[in-house]
Amino acid sequence: MNSIKPDRRAVLAAGVAAPVSGAAAQAQASPPPVTRILAHYIVNARIADMPTNVRREGCRTLLNYVGVAVGGSRHETVDHAIAALAPFSGKAEASLLGRRERFDILNAALINGISSHIFDYDDTHLKTIIHPAGPVVSAALALAQHKHVTGEDFLLAMLLGIEAECRIGNAVYPSHYDMGWHITGSCGVFGSAAACGKLLGLSEQQMVWALGIAASQPVGLKVQFGSMTKSFHPGRAAQNGLTAALLAAQNYTSDDAALEGKDGWAQALSRAVNWREVTDGLGTRFEAALNTYKPFACGIVAHPAIDAAIQLRNAYKLSASDITAIELRANPLVLSLTGKTEPTTGLEGKFSIYHCIAVGLIYGAAGERQFQDAVVRDPTVVALRRKVIVHPDPLVGTAQCDLVVRLKDGRTLSRHIEHAVGSLEKPMSDTELEAKFLDLADGILPPAQARALIVKCRAIEQEPDAGSLALAAVA
Amino acid sequence: MNSIKPDRRAVLAAGVAAPVSGAAAQAQASPPPVTRILAHYIVNARIADMPTNVRREGCRTLLNYVGVAVGGSRHETVDHAIAALAPFSGKAEASLLGRRERFDILNAALINGISSHIFDYDDTHLKTIIHPAGPVVSAALALAQHKHVTGEDFLLAMLLGIEAECRIGNAVYPSHYDMGWHITGSCGVFGSAAACGKLLGLSEQQMVWALGIAASQPVGLKVQFGSMTKSFHPGRAAQNGLTAALLAAQNYTSDDAALEGKDGWAQALSRAVNWREVTDGLGTRFEAALNTYKPFACGIVAHPAIDAAIQLRNAYKLSASDITAIELRANPLVLSLTGKTEPTTGLEGKFSIYHCIAVGLIYGAAGERQFQDAVVRDPTVVALRRKVIVHPDPLVGTAQCDLVVRLKDGRTLSRHIEHAVGSLEKPMSDTELEAKFLDLADGILPPAQARALIVKCRAIEQEPDAGSLALAAVA
Repeated sequence: MNSIKPDRRAVLAAGVAAPVSGAAAQAQASPPPVTRILAHYIVNARIADMPTNVRREGCRTLLNYVGVAVGGSRHETVDHAIAALAPFSGKAEASLLGRRERFDILNAALINGISSHIFDYDDTHLKTIIHPAGPVVSAALALAQHKHVTGEDFLLAMLLGIEAECRIGNAVYPSHYDMGWHITGSCGVFGSAAACGKLLGLSEQQMVWALGIAASQPVGLKVQFGSMTKSFHPGRAAQNGLTAALLAAQNYTSDDAALEGKDGWAQALSRAVNWREVTDGLGTRFEAALNTYKPFACGIVAHPAIDAAIQLRNAYKLSASDITAIELRANPLVLSLTGKTEPTTGLEGKFSIYHCIAVGLIYGAAGERQFQDAVVRDPTVVALRRKVIVHPDPLVGTAQCDLVVRLKDGRTLSRHIEHAVGSLEKPMSDTELEAKFLDLADGILPPAQARALIVKCRAIEQEPDAGSLALAAVA
Repeated sequence: MNSIKPDRRAVLAAGVAAPVSGAAAQAQASPPPVTRILAHYIVNARIADMPTNVRREGCRTLLNYVGVAVGGSRHETVDHAIAALAPFSGKAEASLLGRRERFDILNAALINGISSHIFDYDDTHLKTIIHPAGPVVSAALALAQHKHVTGEDFLLAMLLGIEAECRIGNAVYPSHYDMGWHITGSCGVFGSAAACGKLLGLSEQQMVWALGIAASQPVGLKVQFGSMTKSFHPGRAAQNGLTAALLAAQNYTSDDAALEGKDGWAQALSRAVNWREVTDGLGTRFEAALNTYKPFACGIVAHPAIDAAIQLRNAYKLSASDITAIELRANPLVLSLTGKTEPTTGLEGKFSIYHCIAVGLIYGAAGERQFQDAVVRDPTVVALRRKVIVHPDPLVGTAQCDLVVRLKDGRTLSRHIEHAVGSLEKPMSDTELEAKFLDLADGILPPAQARALIVKCRAIEQEPDAGSLALAAVA
């Protein structure tokens, strides 16, 4: 699944092989001017250049984003952030999705980005595990409430932002991710800067600066998984990219080679880089078309196991009391990211493959309801999750798993997952996406408003005023 | 000068040796709970615990900070940033030093931090090349205009912030710096979070969160040296640390081991770490006492060469027309950081050892005036800088250099510098610091106001309202 093709020249040029000796690094073959190539593309791209399937995926991405942002908006994480920042917010131009408060656009981008990631239910670019919409749409939507933007221009900016962050992610994945970076925030700053810079009509040089200022502000460490700061990452990335674009629009300069230069972003944040992932097929191959949406409200690595658990439950009408033992064979990343054995809160439950499998088997679902504190502490769930044993196996891909369930009656049931529901190969349908949206909006927006919002997201290209979408999503 | 003692256990524990395998990293010896140790110290420290020399150095640091922030405040870099952010600023509570505008405290922290670094004339912690005051004082001073704080509490918070950022810097220097990070911004976030958290009266747990939220927002890449984004780094670090402290005060959580944990700050941002640099002698040995101030308005690595040039000029009454050749033997870092051969702007001149030596020989000074565009383009300066040849020599320490000047009359003059003026061994006197302050404030603040401001900085411990210091520094 991972298409990294190591490119020794690029690795060397990024200074990875000789980080201490600047002179030596400079003497080696130069990397391509990636920052400028990307800026040139973003500034010149038009909506007519975007194939129909890419635009369609953009609308699905937007719908999923608005749903998760509205759904997460009432979480205490958002309450805490609003309490901390409200006293310092500027002109109340921008809406907080799912709420009544209004903030200045920079703070609104942060808060909406936090809301969108609370449930770990957002869109996923599977090659990099980037959640593309959080940084990009949070910033672009806030900006669209400050500066009038058509829906067509909005969709274009959004697609370009996603393209920028995912391509840069591809160039440094997996090294960058393995170092500890929460890639959604560390690459998301570029997506936000690109989208906002496009909406602001930056020149090529200004776009170079916007990407450069963004490069100096990566956000996010994986150590934060399980704490409120995880959701802070896409929000702050949105805010940082928007800040970068606003500064660049006033000719605030950065280095022209902030991404690829000596002592630049790639050298500091990755041990290897393949710049062809950014430059090859720019304008003809679209990462934005590869976006996926989660059917389960937790990290994507747990999805194959949940899918297997739900399939077994439904096929055999299982109940928790039937089960004596559960064994999962899965990629080591599953334990590395979701290895919490004894979660005590809903948030921690999302980082517990044990809890994920238990709720799949008991409820036949792993939506936000199955990650409430009460469910994580439910004795039946706790008892079942303690029966789960995980066998990490590097030979099993991250998209795959084998789940074995042993029953009291002596039977052994098993299920192999090749591609979980919600994957590129088995995407959620439009109908499933709408059902997910309505479930997330339930209790926050009246049903009629939620349905109207779905229509508005789907028809973003015909929307005369993209900012009205944010207004239509407030409580 | 560099006192890094590699600690293999700590390196392994930080996951540097085995970044991919989380389980393996966890199985290795655990690092000390650095984030909590630091938080515990900061929360419990009192002004009475600070030795007199440390407090005195704190006052000198404050004086130098206010001087450079006022001095830099009229630069176009600051104008661009204000133009970009003014439309989004919140309640105008906080002053922009040297100017008339007022911003909300988060934006003021950013702008004042930018001003303080514009001239590259700020304080320097020599072991790490961190400029401690920019991130810390910019944030604490803005906060002191929102929440009433005595001068004594302000000085304590400032000293603790400096302690936090410099000790963390010591723990990862030089690896972190060599990777490409502009350490003032990447470690400065901790200094700002610590100082602001102290002023906000955070509990130990909240201070852990503040440091953790800061860890997710490092700022700054060395690739930006020579562009406006270099000055953005200490400003954004100030703003990020303040944001982290404000969030933590509202119980916004982060991981308890954000610095030292698997997939934490040190693992992602350094190849090696020695946590003893943070924990040893905490409360008895003070990095804040080791702060130094620049007599020359450019990077510290160029100072020995400038000192030598000025000494030769003054000793032999040299003029440019006497000189046929100039040779500098210096540490390779000098060329790596200030190797621009043909600077065209004042800002680029600061990154040109050639220009630095030329102005030292011609003007006997390297203050802000010697880094104006006109001076960099002056034919006499250009002709002289082209006569400079630099020999990088790893055996020469970064504090040392040998400068040789050959004259038309056949004489060869040379000067060895063991410690440049402004170093720890040869610190600027109080009188010299005041002269520097007055020179920076000249043309921005009336002389009487500048002199009153010096008194106010020196007497910060007796100040009933620390925020009044900011008011006293506006134009």
